[in-house]
Amino acid sequence: MDKVEGRATRLSWLPPVRWLANYSAAWLPSDVIAGITLAAYAIPVSLAYAALAGLPPQVGIYGYLLGGIGYALFGSSRQLAIGPTSAISLMIAGTVGAMAAGDALRYAQIASLAAFTVAALSLLAWLLRLSALVKLISDSILVGFKAGAGLTIAMTQLPSLFGVSGGGHNFFERVYLFVSQLGQTQLPVLLVGLVALVLLVAGERLLPGRPVALGVVVLAIVAATLLGLPALGVPVTGKIPSGLPSLAAPALRIRDVEGIVPLAGGCLLLAYIEGVSAARTLAAKHGYAIDARQELLGIGAANLAAAIGQGYPVAGGLSQSAVNDKAGARSALALVFASITLALCLLFLTGSLENLPKAVLAAIVLTAVYGLLDFPAMLRMWHVSRLDFLAATIALLAVLWLGILHGILLAALASILLLLARASQPHVAFLGRIPGTEQFSDMERHPDNEPVPGVIVFRPEASLIYPNADAVLEAVLTRVQSTPGPIRLVVCDLSASPFIDLAGSRMLRDLEAELSGRSITLRIVGAHGRVRDLLRADGLEDKVGGIDRTATVEKVLLVSLRQTG
Amino acid sequence: MDKVEGRATRLSWLPPVRWLANYSAAWLPSDVIAGITLAAYAIPVSLAYAALAGLPPQVGIYGYLLGGIGYALFGSSRQLAIGPTSAISLMIAGTVGAMAAGDALRYAQIASLAAFTVAALSLLAWLLRLSALVKLISDSILVGFKAGAGLTIAMTQLPSLFGVSGGGHNFFERVYLFVSQLGQTQLPVLLVGLVALVLLVAGERLLPGRPVALGVVVLAIVAATLLGLPALGVPVTGKIPSGLPSLAAPALRIRDVEGIVPLAGGCLLLAYIEGVSAARTLAAKHGYAIDARQELLGIGAANLAAAIGQGYPVAGGLSQSAVNDKAGARSALALVFASITLALCLLFLTGSLENLPKAVLAAIVLTAVYGLLDFPAMLRMWHVSRLDFLAATIALLAVLWLGILHGILLAALASILLLLARASQPHVAFLGRIPGTEQFSDMERHPDNEPVPGVIVFRPEASLIYPNADAVLEAVLTRVQSTPGPIRLVVCDLSASPFIDLAGSRMLRDLEAELSGRSITLRIVGAHGRVRDLLRADGLEDKVGGIDRTATVEKVLLVSLRQTG
Repeated sequence: MDKVEGRATRLSWLPPVRWLANYSAAWLPSDVIAGITLAAYAIPVSLAYAALAGLPPQVGIYGYLLGGIGYALFGSSRQLAIGPTSAISLMIAGTVGAMAAGDALRYAQIASLAAFTVAALSLLAWLLRLSALVKLISDSILVGFKAGAGLTIAMTQLPSLFGVSGGGHNFFERVYLFVSQLGQTQLPVLLVGLVALVLLVAGERLLPGRPVALGVVVLAIVAATLLGLPALGVPVTGKIPSGLPSLAAPALRIRDVEGIVPLAGGCLLLAYIEGVSAARTLAAKHGYAIDARQELLGIGAANLAAAIGQGYPVAGGLSQSAVNDKAGARSALALVFASITLALCLLFLTGSLENLPKAVLAAIVLTAVYGLLDFPAMLRMWHVSRLDFLAATIALLAVLWLGILHGILLAALASILLLLARASQPHVAFLGRIPGTEQFSDMERHPDNEPVPGVIVFRPEASLIYPNADAVLEAVLTRVQSTPGPIRLVVCDLSASPFIDLAGSRMLRDLEAELSGRSITLRIVGAHGRVRDLLRADGLEDKVGGIDRTATVEKVLLVSLRQTG
Repeated sequence: MDKVEGRATRLSWLPPVRWLANYSAAWLPSDVIAGITLAAYAIPVSLAYAALAGLPPQVGIYGYLLGGIGYALFGSSRQLAIGPTSAISLMIAGTVGAMAAGDALRYAQIASLAAFTVAALSLLAWLLRLSALVKLISDSILVGFKAGAGLTIAMTQLPSLFGVSGGGHNFFERVYLFVSQLGQTQLPVLLVGLVALVLLVAGERLLPGRPVALGVVVLAIVAATLLGLPALGVPVTGKIPSGLPSLAAPALRIRDVEGIVPLAGGCLLLAYIEGVSAARTLAAKHGYAIDARQELLGIGAANLAAAIGQGYPVAGGLSQSAVNDKAGARSALALVFASITLALCLLFLTGSLENLPKAVLAAIVLTAVYGLLDFPAMLRMWHVSRLDFLAATIALLAVLWLGILHGILLAALASILLLLARASQPHVAFLGRIPGTEQFSDMERHPDNEPVPGVIVFRPEASLIYPNADAVLEAVLTRVQSTPGPIRLVVCDLSASPFIDLAGSRMLRDLEAELSGRSITLRIVGAHGRVRDLLRADGLEDKVGGIDRTATVEKVLLVSLRQTG
């Protein structure tokens, strides 16, 4: 036991060393069943996502097949399932198309190169311990982002469902073109798509956790073959090459790198945020912990494997992981069994997929992205926190307008600027005594609080830093000027200012100079340790008297009364 | 009087309407003398700065001549002097050179176009009320930036002082090339430069506030003519065309705009920050107020006038304004008299500047930029606030490495990221009772504070927002796990958290769930009004009990003791 623990510590970057040592034989059947179930879910979804990405259908399966094995070696989650996702597929379609300029072979090469670059960036982020970067995107931004991605993806699929050509560069153009093409709707196509949609929705309600999509796909292939749908003009998937992907490092061309690095950065950001969040949810359910830094290695290994096997960037997603979990996965071995199942399908079953109508794939994507739209969460933000609602709305509109990659970058930037804008216009509370107590609180919120005659007590509700120092000074001086009657004392309560910089300290010095010109004393109370340190080092105590940790508004008032009385 | 006041309010964007109505005849002599003194200061400096910018010498004088008149019409300061500055001149040299590709005429056109674009951006910023943008650059960044600009400019001038060719794209290259060329030093040139330097430094010490540089220039011209210095190989200014600038809108070429907009944005940022800061300093001295938004119009008008008169971007600088103020300027009329003086010089005196040695101009720039190096301020930051020191150092190195324009943009970005990084790793204080009181403070800072048995009191010293929510949760759970003995109560003191978003609220909810799983109660005290609002709207009170404004750590402990005892 000691030996195993010791080895586990030395090889902490290789999680299987630990969990295989503790693997119980009783788990094996669960992992096998979960793997087969996951594969049954993966086949139709990966065909659909590959089509969304503009790639040959089998490439989506390659991603599941190889990405899962890569993650099983390095990931720290036991239930997370790895494969192409709708958002990443759309991002690939939006970016690689322009670079490949119509050359299908190059398109696939660039997509694999993107997966390779995701792997390289993951390793870099692991080395630099950048797992904190995930914090740049708040949950609220993510809600808006997912809704935008869901709506955008839905608009790429509706034309396939209606049998029209579609097109357009962003959501709004797609809506416009789709609506203007509605007159050319192919009724047989629409019928096939709607039937599939109804079956998918009903199946998910009635048979939760079962591979409903696989059932619908089988039904659709049988129906299409019996009814001769391809001859009626219903587009089908066509021949899918059988066999396993040939393994080779993607051809690296220096001039592609410039375009691929931002794309891969976007994929990694999405893959990491979505993957860690799904992994955490499942880990909490089963009572174990996720290693956020190790997940960078897991995503990196998954994408490296996908890249070597002609796949495109993969990630851990909540919906496929939920399938894996519900089917009973106990360890990452489930992913290995899923890969084995997929390999068998690629070897023996691709021929039977030939007659699968594309409208059915569109219906599968539409039901999958429906889960991305969380409008109740948006409504809740509106009621609870307008700033979060604003961030989510910016992310939603940015994705609709600019697409997924630029949309999420803009949303992250906007979110930081919102925080900064908030920090630069802080609320300055003017305090009065809570009746019958020695405590003070905001008179604006509690008009029953009693102001102290001749005294102004203010509390800036923010760190005092360069973006807001001037605004605080102005608010206080305005209050001093607009207060009737003589003022003899101003008390600055710094308890709500967790941090201060030189600009904040200089502001207090300026305030003291301004007030002492009017024979008003300034006193500081409630300053926290680090704030006191800076104020002392900057010599503020020479100006405003001792700044100590026990000073309260009440004590300062008593001392001041004694001096003047 | 009523009528004048009424008109002043209506035309508040045209300050002269107000101050001319109140102009006292007694001020006129002061303004005339200040104007002539300012012109005497401006001539040598603007020749030197124009050379630094890579423009013909007279262009610097055009900037003073016309920029001053533009500012006098729209600016709100009475003492600010407007003209080319060293930082802007260097920025022009670093950017326009590449665009003009050796064509001197185009070089001058692009420089004028930049001034025109500064004017357009100022107007835009005025319309959008963007005067708050100045807050993106803290005083600490500015200290580092000025030091970097000063060192960079000094390295552009030392080769002229030593009579070597110089060159290089950034500070480090310039140092390297200069040192490697020292063997080719032209002794006559160096001698002229050093004598000028000594005279300038001694003159500023002995005759503060007098146009020392003009005296040195006159001496140098006389000496150069008498000694025949040009024939000895000492480079001189050469012929300066006499006459006033011809007025014309700069030729606008669409393909130049892309390169000019960032340059003009950088000029505006610098001009605005430096100008408002100098104007505020002088206004405080004389007891009037600066209108920060109006200053955008002032800068815009100054640059528009400069652009029309073949000048390049101008700004209000502290050193020239100090000259104007010390000479007695009472109103912006001083700028008009300075312009008249400069116009007379351009008409009648340019011929006599022909023999001015360039090394003397270099010496003038060197003494001017010495004032940009404020190393005592850097030292002070090191002692008082490491974060400010870091921001200043980043700005200093960024300017040395990337040049002024990219350097200041990088520094502003780094400064925001530093704030964000700080916000994402907040200090979580664990509190103990200050002996003999009912107050609590950080036990890490005050080991004599008494912990309450079975209770953990923590205070996050930051707003609880998405970049830091996870870190706070982890710090508290780690503390709970590492505290020996049973814990029955955790008190969260939110008094140092001025703001909270949904991620912060969710973190408190997660903490409650985690603690109640271990039979530990969570209570929240000290939440400020807006924080309470969000927590209530998010339903936290159902979990942790009432969150009211009078709750303190002491009261919660008393209630808890009563319940368990």
